[in-house]
Amino acid sequence: MESSIDKHLVCPRRLSRRVADDYQPPFPLFVARAAEDLKQVVMAYFGIQYQGQDKKPAALAALRKIVDLFAGNDGPLSYDLTHHVDAYGYDNLIAVAYWRDPAAHCRWLRSTAVAGWWDSDERLADGIGYFREIVSPRAEQYETLFTHAQAEKYQGVGAIMDSASGEIQEHGYWGSMRDRIPISQTDWMSPSGDLEILSGDPRRGGRVTVRGHDNIALIRSGQDWREADGAERELYLSEMEPPLRQGMDFVRDNGPAIGCYSNRYVRNIDLDGNLMDETYDIGYWRSLAHLERWAESHPSHLKIFVTFFRVITGLQKLRLYHEVSVFDLSDQLYEYINCHSNTGMLRDASIQAMAA
Amino acid sequence: MESSIDKHLVCPRRLSRRVADDYQPPFPLFVARAAEDLKQVVMAYFGIQYQGQDKKPAALAALRKIVDLFAGNDGPLSYDLTHHVDAYGYDNLIAVAYWRDPAAHCRWLRSTAVAGWWDSDERLADGIGYFREIVSPRAEQYETLFTHAQAEKYQGVGAIMDSASGEIQEHGYWGSMRDRIPISQTDWMSPSGDLEILSGDPRRGGRVTVRGHDNIALIRSGQDWREADGAERELYLSEMEPPLRQGMDFVRDNGPAIGCYSNRYVRNIDLDGNLMDETYDIGYWRSLAHLERWAESHPSHLKIFVTFFRVITGLQKLRLYHEVSVFDLSDQLYEYINCHSNTGMLRDASIQAMAA
Repeated sequence: MESSIDKHLVCPRRLSRRVADDYQPPFPLFVARAAEDLKQVVMAYFGIQYQGQDKKPAALAALRKIVDLFAGNDGPLSYDLTHHVDAYGYDNLIAVAYWRDPAAHCRWLRSTAVAGWWDSDERLADGIGYFREIVSPRAEQYETLFTHAQAEKYQGVGAIMDSASGEIQEHGYWGSMRDRIPISQTDWMSPSGDLEILSGDPRRGGRVTVRGHDNIALIRSGQDWREADGAERELYLSEMEPPLRQGMDFVRDNGPAIGCYSNRYVRNIDLDGNLMDETYDIGYWRSLAHLERWAESHPSHLKIFVTFFRVITGLQKLRLYHEVSVFDLSDQLYEYINCHSNTGMLRDASIQAMAA
Repeated sequence: MESSIDKHLVCPRRLSRRVADDYQPPFPLFVARAAEDLKQVVMAYFGIQYQGQDKKPAALAALRKIVDLFAGNDGPLSYDLTHHVDAYGYDNLIAVAYWRDPAAHCRWLRSTAVAGWWDSDERLADGIGYFREIVSPRAEQYETLFTHAQAEKYQGVGAIMDSASGEIQEHGYWGSMRDRIPISQTDWMSPSGDLEILSGDPRRGGRVTVRGHDNIALIRSGQDWREADGAERELYLSEMEPPLRQGMDFVRDNGPAIGCYSNRYVRNIDLDGNLMDETYDIGYWRSLAHLERWAESHPSHLKIFVTFFRVITGLQKLRLYHEVSVFDLSDQLYEYINCHSNTGMLRDASIQAMAA
C-alpha cells in the first residue's frame, strides 16, 4: 500500500491527514501517477449550446470544428466529447481537452486558428451558444481516483498522466479526497472572493466573461459501463445510475444553497453525436469544503455512496473514477457567447453581483 | 461560536482539526463545561444479569442494594438506572454512576461496604449474574454533545459537570467527534494490544476479569423524549427510533467484524423497574477510528444520521446527547460474576484469546 501523494510531491506537513498511519482502507483503489516533469495541467471545457433540433447540425459542425482545432500544433494530448440537456432545456455539447504543458496550451489558444475562430464576430451570429471554461491546477492541486489499475484506460486527466499507482491508502473515509490533494499537506484550500462578471451582461447574451476566485474546486466524476455485461450492466443501470442521476440533478438545481456553482451530468458521444455507455459529472464548487459537506451529509449523495460501498467489491468491468482540482484565481478562464444567463458560472456570478 | 475544547484544555497542536477556522456548522449544538479542577472522571457501569421473570425480584433487590451503596461515603455525584434484553435473551439491569474525583471513587470502591459486598462468595450463589465495567477518562480524553443548552438537564457525564457551552464549532462533519476530544490535538488515540482474559473462564461462569488495552473508546448516546409531546413524540417514535434500534442491533450482533466489543441499547427505569421515556446506547469500540468508520460509512448509521439531520432544526422538547471517551489501559476495570460468556467484553476477549 502506498500514499496517494506521489513521493516527489510530499513535503513537510503543516496540516495532518485525517487518519493515522495504520489506517487500512476497506477495498483497493488506485490513482494516476505522473513523472516529475508534470508541473501543471490544463483542463479545457469547450461548450456548444443550442435549443431545438434544427440547430443540431450547426452544433455538431461546431463540435467538429473544435476537434479539428485540437489537431493543430500544440493541441491537447487527450480529449472526449459529451452531450447533456441542462436544467433549462437547452442541449449542450462539450469537448473537454487536457494538456500536460500549460505553455503549449497557451500557444494553442493564442494561435491564429483558435483565437481567430473564437474571437470572430461570426461566433455571435451562428445561432448557437458557445462557452469555454479553462482551468489549470498545478500538480499539487489535484487528485485522481480509479477503481481500476489499467492506466491505458484512464479517463479525464488520468489519460495524460503516465501510469497507475499501487493500492493507495487515502480512501474509504470522508476527508480522503482532501488528503489525496498534495497541497492539503500545508494549505486549507479556502476560497477567497466571489464570482464576478468581468465583462458583458448575461441577460443580454453576447460575450460574457466571469472572474473566478482562489480555490474554486472542480470535480469530474465518471462512470464507464462500456465493457460491463449481464448482471453488472443491469446492476449499474438499475441500482447505481438512478440515485446518481437524482443526486446530480439535486446539486444542479440547488447549487446556490449548498455552494455548487455549476453541475453537469453529461454523457459521452462520438463525433456524430451518438451516445456511448459512459457518463460523468462536471461540478464546480465554491470550495473543496463545500463539496465535502454536501458529499458527506446530504441524503442525495449518501445514497450514492452507500450503493457504491455495497457493490464495489463485486465490480468487474464497470469502471468508476473521479478527479478533483482546486485552482488559483489566475489559472481560470470562464467565457460565454450567447449562452442563456444560467449557464455555467453565469448563474451564480449574477447572483453574487446582485448581492454585492 | 466557541471551540468545543475548553480554553484550559487547549494546547499546541501536533495534529490539525479536519476543518478550517472559518467552518460554520449547519445548526447549533452544545457541550458540557467543567472547571479546571475536574482532571479525571469515573464512569462506572454496575450490571445485574438474569434470565426468567422469577429472578426479577432478586435482580431488582440487587439494583437497590447498589443504589444504597451509592449513598455511602464517597459515593457518585450522579447515577441512572436502565434495563435491556441482550442478544442472548438475558435481562440486564445497569446502574451507571459518575464520579468527578477518581480518588473518592477509589475510596468508595474499596470501602468495607462495597468491597465486602462485591467480593463476597454470596455473590456467586445469588442465582443472578453481576458485572462492573469501570472506566476513567481524563479531562482531555472525553467529549460531550447536546442538542440543548440547559446544563441542569444534562445526562451522563454532563450531569457531574458545571455548565453548558455556547454554540460550538466542531460538529456537523465526520471527524468532529475526534476534534472535540482535547487529546486529539496531539494524539491519534490508537489502540494498543488486545482484550485478554485476566482470570477465570467465561465458559465456566464464576468470576472473570478482562484486561482492556489503551484507547478503547466508549460512546454513550442518549435520547430523552419525556417532555416531547404530540407531533414531536410521534416523529421520534415512528421515524427516529426504528432506524436507531435497527442500527444498534446491527452493531450489537456484528461487533467482531466492525470493531465493536459490546453494544447495549438500554432503556431508563426507576428503582421499581418501571420504564421511562429515555434510552441510550452504550458501546465499547476497539478504537475511536473503528467507531468513526462505522458511523460514517455503514448504511445502518447513515440512516440514523440522515434522519437526525433532517429533523434536528425542528426539535423542541426531544433531547439528544452523547459522550465519547477513550481510556488508558490502567484506567479500565472489567469484571463479571456468573454472566453468560458473551456478556460485555467477555465475547471478544474470548475470541481474541483463541486467536492468540
